[in-house]
Amino acid sequence: MSTAGAQDWIPGPGDALLIVDVQNDFLPGGSLAVPQGDDVVPVLNRYAALFRARHLPVFASRDWHPANHCSFAQQGGPWPPHCVAETHGAQFAPGLDMSDAVVISKATEPQSDAYSAFENTDLDSHLKKTGINRLFVGGLATDYCVLSSVRDAIRHNYSVILLEDAIRAVNVKPEDGPKAVDEMLELGCHPTTVESVGIAPSSPPAVMTDLYQLAMLKAYHDQGMEQSAVFEFYIRNLPAGRNFMMAAGLAQVLEYLEGLQFTRQERDWLNTSGRFPAEFVESLEDFRFTGDVDALLEGTLFFPNEPVLRITAPLPQAQLVETCVINILQLQVLAASKAARMVLAAPGKMLLDFGLRRAHSTEAGLRVARASYIAGFTGSSAVPAEAFYGIPVFGTMAHSYIQAHTEEAAAFKNFARSWPDHTFFLLDTYDTEQAAQRVVALSQELQNEGITIKGVRLDSGDLVALSRKVRNILDHGGLQDTLIFASGNLDEYALETLIGQQAPIDGFGIGTRLAVSEDAPTLECVYKLQEYDGQPRRKRSTGKATWPGRKQIFRTFNDQGKMQEDHLALENEVLAGEALLKPCMREGKRLGPPVTLDQHRKRAARQLVLLPEHLRSLKPTEPYPVHLSKKIRDLAERLDKPSS
Amino acid sequence: MSTAGAQDWIPGPGDALLIVDVQNDFLPGGSLAVPQGDDVVPVLNRYAALFRARHLPVFASRDWHPANHCSFAQQGGPWPPHCVAETHGAQFAPGLDMSDAVVISKATEPQSDAYSAFENTDLDSHLKKTGINRLFVGGLATDYCVLSSVRDAIRHNYSVILLEDAIRAVNVKPEDGPKAVDEMLELGCHPTTVESVGIAPSSPPAVMTDLYQLAMLKAYHDQGMEQSAVFEFYIRNLPAGRNFMMAAGLAQVLEYLEGLQFTRQERDWLNTSGRFPAEFVESLEDFRFTGDVDALLEGTLFFPNEPVLRITAPLPQAQLVETCVINILQLQVLAASKAARMVLAAPGKMLLDFGLRRAHSTEAGLRVARASYIAGFTGSSAVPAEAFYGIPVFGTMAHSYIQAHTEEAAAFKNFARSWPDHTFFLLDTYDTEQAAQRVVALSQELQNEGITIKGVRLDSGDLVALSRKVRNILDHGGLQDTLIFASGNLDEYALETLIGQQAPIDGFGIGTRLAVSEDAPTLECVYKLQEYDGQPRRKRSTGKATWPGRKQIFRTFNDQGKMQEDHLALENEVLAGEALLKPCMREGKRLGPPVTLDQHRKRAARQLVLLPEHLRSLKPTEPYPVHLSKKIRDLAERLDKPSS
Repeated sequence: MSTAGAQDWIPGPGDALLIVDVQNDFLPGGSLAVPQGDDVVPVLNRYAALFRARHLPVFASRDWHPANHCSFAQQGGPWPPHCVAETHGAQFAPGLDMSDAVVISKATEPQSDAYSAFENTDLDSHLKKTGINRLFVGGLATDYCVLSSVRDAIRHNYSVILLEDAIRAVNVKPEDGPKAVDEMLELGCHPTTVESVGIAPSSPPAVMTDLYQLAMLKAYHDQGMEQSAVFEFYIRNLPAGRNFMMAAGLAQVLEYLEGLQFTRQERDWLNTSGRFPAEFVESLEDFRFTGDVDALLEGTLFFPNEPVLRITAPLPQAQLVETCVINILQLQVLAASKAARMVLAAPGKMLLDFGLRRAHSTEAGLRVARASYIAGFTGSSAVPAEAFYGIPVFGTMAHSYIQAHTEEAAAFKNFARSWPDHTFFLLDTYDTEQAAQRVVALSQELQNEGITIKGVRLDSGDLVALSRKVRNILDHGGLQDTLIFASGNLDEYALETLIGQQAPIDGFGIGTRLAVSEDAPTLECVYKLQEYDGQPRRKRSTGKATWPGRKQIFRTFNDQGKMQEDHLALENEVLAGEALLKPCMREGKRLGPPVTLDQHRKRAARQLVLLPEHLRSLKPTEPYPVHLSKKIRDLAERLDKPSS
Repeated sequence: MSTAGAQDWIPGPGDALLIVDVQNDFLPGGSLAVPQGDDVVPVLNRYAALFRARHLPVFASRDWHPANHCSFAQQGGPWPPHCVAETHGAQFAPGLDMSDAVVISKATEPQSDAYSAFENTDLDSHLKKTGINRLFVGGLATDYCVLSSVRDAIRHNYSVILLEDAIRAVNVKPEDGPKAVDEMLELGCHPTTVESVGIAPSSPPAVMTDLYQLAMLKAYHDQGMEQSAVFEFYIRNLPAGRNFMMAAGLAQVLEYLEGLQFTRQERDWLNTSGRFPAEFVESLEDFRFTGDVDALLEGTLFFPNEPVLRITAPLPQAQLVETCVINILQLQVLAASKAARMVLAAPGKMLLDFGLRRAHSTEAGLRVARASYIAGFTGSSAVPAEAFYGIPVFGTMAHSYIQAHTEEAAAFKNFARSWPDHTFFLLDTYDTEQAAQRVVALSQELQNEGITIKGVRLDSGDLVALSRKVRNILDHGGLQDTLIFASGNLDEYALETLIGQQAPIDGFGIGTRLAVSEDAPTLECVYKLQEYDGQPRRKRSTGKATWPGRKQIFRTFNDQGKMQEDHLALENEVLAGEALLKPCMREGKRLGPPVTLDQHRKRAARQLVLLPEHLRSLKPTEPYPVHLSKKIRDLAERLDKPSS
């Protein structure tokens, strides 16, 4: 017996997510701000992602008042004016992921107020129509609109799961929030947290860092050094043989920063470690990332010394995140850049990521699936790539499947019957040509059962010769439409050779050499202090000196629209060209909801089109011109002078 | 307001773990078996690891009956004889991690029974004495001893957290378990699950696999192909330049296998993906790993074609786990092997893993910390390495810390005052020698404050020359005991050079090149079917043929005790030498509790001592002799003959 446990509270058919009133006026800075109301945004985004991945509906209610609404003080109501329809204050929180959410507007008439999302709305009929009988409810504020919505939901016979990590209370009286939660639990709500409800990627915890970051944090804490610091992430050099790099991983950095906090268990652990004074650990309770991020959008091409991401935040915050910022960006940049080379080497071919097993962790494998999809891959073999990121997944059979049968032909037949619409056969377990002949021999029998053989896969041997022979056998056997896939230690060079020799291969599975970016498994990437408390800073270590100040990249394009040159300048310089670093986060909040992977993918495809012809080569060539502005050089010189 | 949320239910000071009666007789096969009673073992091990990491006590109760106990049927009691003191049935479950647990024996007298761990025991006084006021309770059985213990705990004024993922019921009547849980919740217990309570490494979910595994599983399901299969994990070749590999990662494989199941949310997701028939997905509900594992113990050295791990299990189980088995083993083998070369290159030096930021995920970074610690590293910079694995962690300051101060000397002074017992300074931000002189100039002032400068770190430049100059400056300044550490793109070759030139460096921080095993970031490692349903199997793909049958490695040693040669034979051959593959898991359960990392570390150190001298070289040399037995060759020949 597994008890009436967490497993019964997982979103499934019949469930919907209801996000209550997560609107600007209820966030810090709004006219009716709920303390820490913005904390619910990243958590609700994780819930929403789970619901979408399961094709379950998401509803979002909003106050949508006329300017003379009865709840406003001028009209004798209890509240300051808030959430007036069509104003900024009524908009959903900027970082809230509202894609596909059904919006429920309430209290839209001057004379009637509505705390509950059910009051004078069509929410109930909408839910009933779509067969929903259970609601997962979170949002703002616990003690008003969440409470009222939950009361009504239960009155309307819905089961309710209360998202206790995604609600915040106004607390006009300090116990209002806890009392509201108690009432909801007594009404029969089941409380849950996002960790309990699903399989979804999660961000690293705050303690996932190098010890020296915490050691420095304590020293900063002791000295009160909490002024604004500017750090930039960039690479010092291109890996050998590369002509460009592609940005990727920004979404994971932003998620990490937005959710950053030391949980009670992390602080407990820091205390029991005996390494830090309790007063310092206590100070970490309120630690959040409240800074700004400017970055290259994912899919953008970049070059050495160009900032890929800039963080401007109080020094302790900007410092702590170094380890994870580097960790997150390095792998995805490596994978996207490697995958982009394969896309250039095999234009128009299906490229599939087969690397999960050879990646350096399952987390890494899924990040590689994500980055390679952005760079132009068609999909991945990794099952969770679909649940996590919406990436198409592919897969057929292994050699062991063939071997487990006594006869290869029986293995093929069984598989075809189990997967009549996805009939792909692996040919090289014993003898590739014999296997191809077996496929032809089987095809009529399978056709009679309504099964079309979609494709075959070669995984060893001379792929050029074998693909030609197999194509020939299949064509002569009437299987002209059966696709040929190839795999086995492929990389961009192998692809170039196969394409150059016109091997009749329709798609490629790429594993090991993509999964770890085998020829360049690390980047010389760093995250360096450029400015503290308004003063530019420069490190002068031998071979590792930095260019000081906060920077911008200006990229120009030639008459044909191709990339021409980049100018690396101080942020406040005004130069011709497109400014590549875009504002992504302000005061710890994302400036917009996460965009889909396909948007990044389209950007990446456009970038590869804009790449100058000679840089598309797999061979190293004349480097892309990146000019350093005179102001940066002057600044470095000035900083070097008063040698401390 | 964050509501009375999950954060309040985290183990901390005043908390203890109580494991109730997880004894052989209550497990499947025991005389009073609780259905799926053994499922609680891996979950309780995770709780126990959390409690130990926080220095919180663990208690384990046990029935410890005399042979004529009143509860036994012969004495007129309700139960068959069980848990008779000193018998196998009374022992704790073999895989249960009991290290440091306080054992509470109950019902030890013929005439008195005790379901509750409090009844006639000193548990209460023990808890009160150690200041415990809250108990986390799990174990067997929900509806008897767990329930009684919880009732008593509450009667004795303890708060109780019920570990709902670590209890199982007898269910004499089917509703007994749920009723017991209801009663405990009504008594005020708070239910929790292991995911909610802490930071701890977790195993990949069952859906963390390649799609083709699930495609094959469906085909096996359709065909009823569920006979026993034997798969072996091995490497085809040594990476270029390597003379040996070191086994690591077995513990993570065993954890993964032991906890493997498709949760409700995973099955829901598979259903909503639309890819599988509901009947197949439903069949996955009972999917568990019930097979056997034989493997090289961690720290053991091995060579190409030698099985590192063998899985014997029903075909679908052995197949599904391929992706994660390879994923888990490859990285740790790479990291342990690379780290072992560094240990050989720098005998007696402190080696620290600094690689978290450059690893391919934070998960990978922690696995590298673990594997390098096994291979002989002293510790890691990664904070969670301590919480997860009990690895010593180290860290001081970054360049940004120095740069954030206007004066280097002020930075040093501030840090020393914040960390008077861990005073280490980074010297190369501006000018290493000047910085060393600053350290000397400061040392008297700090000494007067009771602060001793423990060490300095060099991170760039010519480390041989600089370390000599710095040593000289420190020695002349009276700082003979101040250690010199070095870091910056180090690997085994750099270490060999530095040691060869007698650079006066006491310890090394190794980052990037260890974190991804930079010169060999992947292994040609495979997991291949060797036998199905009692019949040996062989794949003959060009360049990727396999040796059939289930194997054993026999290792012999010469007169000096050094490794002499290995014989790769069929498992049932009897050869001289030590059989290296050890039984680790039977019928899905570990044969013993996890051992400490230090035991693996000691084994690894012994292995490096036994390694023949010429193989200790960093350069590739005469390969270690591994002989293939005639029986394996004969078997391969026989299988090749009736070419199918």
